[in-house]
Amino acid sequence: MDFIDCISLQEAKKIIKAHCQCTADVESVSLVESLNRIAANDVLAGENLPPFRRSTVDGYAVKSTDTFGAEEGIPALLTIAGEITMGQAVTSLLQSGQAWIIPTGGMLPDGADAIVMVEHTELFDKDCVLIAKKAAPGENVIQQGEDVRPEQIILQRGQLIRYQDIGLLAACGQTTISVRKKLRVGIISTGDEIVDIDSSPGPGQVRNINSYVLQALLTSLGCEAVSYGIVADCYEQLVDTMNRAVTDCDLVLLSGGSSMGGRDYSVAVIDNLGRPGVLFHGIAVKPGKPTIFGMANSVPVFGLPGHPAAAITMFHRLVKLAVSSLAGRSEQHSLVVPARISRNIASAPGRDDFISVRLEKRDDGYWAEPVFGRSGLISIMTQADGVIHISAEVGGLYAGDKIDVEIFALGL
Amino acid sequence: MDFIDCISLQEAKKIIKAHCQCTADVESVSLVESLNRIAANDVLAGENLPPFRRSTVDGYAVKSTDTFGAEEGIPALLTIAGEITMGQAVTSLLQSGQAWIIPTGGMLPDGADAIVMVEHTELFDKDCVLIAKKAAPGENVIQQGEDVRPEQIILQRGQLIRYQDIGLLAACGQTTISVRKKLRVGIISTGDEIVDIDSSPGPGQVRNINSYVLQALLTSLGCEAVSYGIVADCYEQLVDTMNRAVTDCDLVLLSGGSSMGGRDYSVAVIDNLGRPGVLFHGIAVKPGKPTIFGMANSVPVFGLPGHPAAAITMFHRLVKLAVSSLAGRSEQHSLVVPARISRNIASAPGRDDFISVRLEKRDDGYWAEPVFGRSGLISIMTQADGVIHISAEVGGLYAGDKIDVEIFALGL
Repeated sequence: MDFIDCISLQEAKKIIKAHCQCTADVESVSLVESLNRIAANDVLAGENLPPFRRSTVDGYAVKSTDTFGAEEGIPALLTIAGEITMGQAVTSLLQSGQAWIIPTGGMLPDGADAIVMVEHTELFDKDCVLIAKKAAPGENVIQQGEDVRPEQIILQRGQLIRYQDIGLLAACGQTTISVRKKLRVGIISTGDEIVDIDSSPGPGQVRNINSYVLQALLTSLGCEAVSYGIVADCYEQLVDTMNRAVTDCDLVLLSGGSSMGGRDYSVAVIDNLGRPGVLFHGIAVKPGKPTIFGMANSVPVFGLPGHPAAAITMFHRLVKLAVSSLAGRSEQHSLVVPARISRNIASAPGRDDFISVRLEKRDDGYWAEPVFGRSGLISIMTQADGVIHISAEVGGLYAGDKIDVEIFALGL
Repeated sequence: MDFIDCISLQEAKKIIKAHCQCTADVESVSLVESLNRIAANDVLAGENLPPFRRSTVDGYAVKSTDTFGAEEGIPALLTIAGEITMGQAVTSLLQSGQAWIIPTGGMLPDGADAIVMVEHTELFDKDCVLIAKKAAPGENVIQQGEDVRPEQIILQRGQLIRYQDIGLLAACGQTTISVRKKLRVGIISTGDEIVDIDSSPGPGQVRNINSYVLQALLTSLGCEAVSYGIVADCYEQLVDTMNRAVTDCDLVLLSGGSSMGGRDYSVAVIDNLGRPGVLFHGIAVKPGKPTIFGMANSVPVFGLPGHPAAAITMFHRLVKLAVSSLAGRSEQHSLVVPARISRNIASAPGRDDFISVRLEKRDDGYWAEPVFGRSGLISIMTQADGVIHISAEVGGLYAGDKIDVEIFALGL
């Protein structure tokens, strides 16, 4: 098997992007429910944040001009003329020569333009305070609208909503958020050798790993995953199940059928579901070469390799891209960590290789230890922290070479 | 305000760990539902994986001794005596002088001990094949149990279950998984100045940001978050609500009340709920100094600062630790990325500082740009990629200094 009939990974991505347009409906959810959803619209602030001038410290509100020249040894003497309480409106005016007690977060009275920290003051008697440091205008004050201005974008269309965004939306009084509806993604496993996980595989059989891994991956991406179970290598049965899936779902993943005979089935079935049918099969990439992509009318369909490591690699490279496009999510940037590769790795030029690695922190920085071992091992995938990419232009790596490691999802 | 009465961050962590023991009940969930849950027990494999010897390539199953000496130009000639089909048991024996057609993943027939890749063969006629490369014993074969052995631990007690783990569990036929029940965590906001997010804050008032941020953070950690709304600075009301919360929840977070008056309330209320009451208040850390921790009998209670940036910092440093301990989650290692700091940062010795930064990739690696700006700004927290820690032993940083950036959660 060579890569002559294969398209490049870049080309595969282009085709997927061109065919996966955002079609997800919009729904309104409460602020709490918007976590990890995709914003359907830009959200603009309706008002100033903070809505009033606020102190950042515990201290005294003053007119800054009253403190000019004040320093340790020559303090200014001001009359304590009021006290600001949290949550209370201030109506009267701070006059020249006055200081008002103010807590952190308290609203400045009109007439005041600075706060002197309590640490730089000393009580002279119960009515007067000594100010031992001059205050510049605006010192220890957050101005009205300094944090957020009216009409400022506080959430961008296409953005994944994180806890920090929820904080800003709460601060700006947004109680409901327009988000994209969750995509419904169908998963079908195919192959005469596949049995469900509650079965004991007989000789030559294997359990249906990919349905479960793909469900977990899709759930993590915020999709609703629907498993259509296992279909044997039978053209009619596969067409029937696939037809149900493309009718009910926004995207369909067909797993397996990547052996030579099975792949032919997959291509024929995807071609049969609607126009334009198969758009590519075979990518110059390892693992994942026998990946298929097509459109059953408006529904994108992937034929993923049966081997779990290959299916996961292609999920990260291609399915994620399709999900993002369909859900209207803006470009994601993955985190890469600079590291050195721990041993020589051969790679054929003209092919993009993806190799799972474990990161090891040594005194001189991170080292990336490949965890591939023998092709076909399932247990190794649990050991990887990330993946390295040996691009089609490069012919391999020497131990000690600097490489970028793309990090898998991190929990909080 | 100085840090004389404060305990160190290290000491605070020790106290939290000592008091938060895993008490979460165990429940059984389906494999699909086990994503992002905490394993309650070690799971052991019950059988070999793979359960039979399997080919890693498309090719011919052979006796390796029949191929010794074979090479380009002097091929070995073998009789094609059978074909392995996926999912079919193989009963007859491969004899010396024979080659059997086998697909990737196919089960080796007894008598065979190696696979020759199809690329290194040529059909001589319909019954015979030329083998142009000698095969070592075991070549292109995964042995029975090479991936997983019976009794091998495939999931560790306390581990967060990721999609990769679900793959391995599926491969080993685990259909239900014992996990820790989700922790129920109560959130109470306090402060006379706090209004709900659907209100327009009057002069001196602010919206209840922390309840929403804390709910999102807790949900991301796999907890069930329960909001008890806003309670004014009134001792009786606060005691009443807190009593309900510690009765219903595994952990309670009290937000706000960090101004001088409010903090006194919080300390008094937490002390009133049960023994031993408050265990510390005040940590030598910035932001987050006025943090309170105590035990209301068996229920841990945090008093978090009212300022969102401080509350979030203390959530990451301390609340997460309590949640992990209570949920029986094994030690987590956060990802740190080496970077250089973009500007000088002052820090008082004797105090642990945490500064939110945005990572910027330049030609010479990552640079960390502090995003703190003016204390009290909400909008800046949405710009941070991670946080740097200036430990109590260090007196600050110079622009260009190397530092580790702890990365916030990454989506898939």
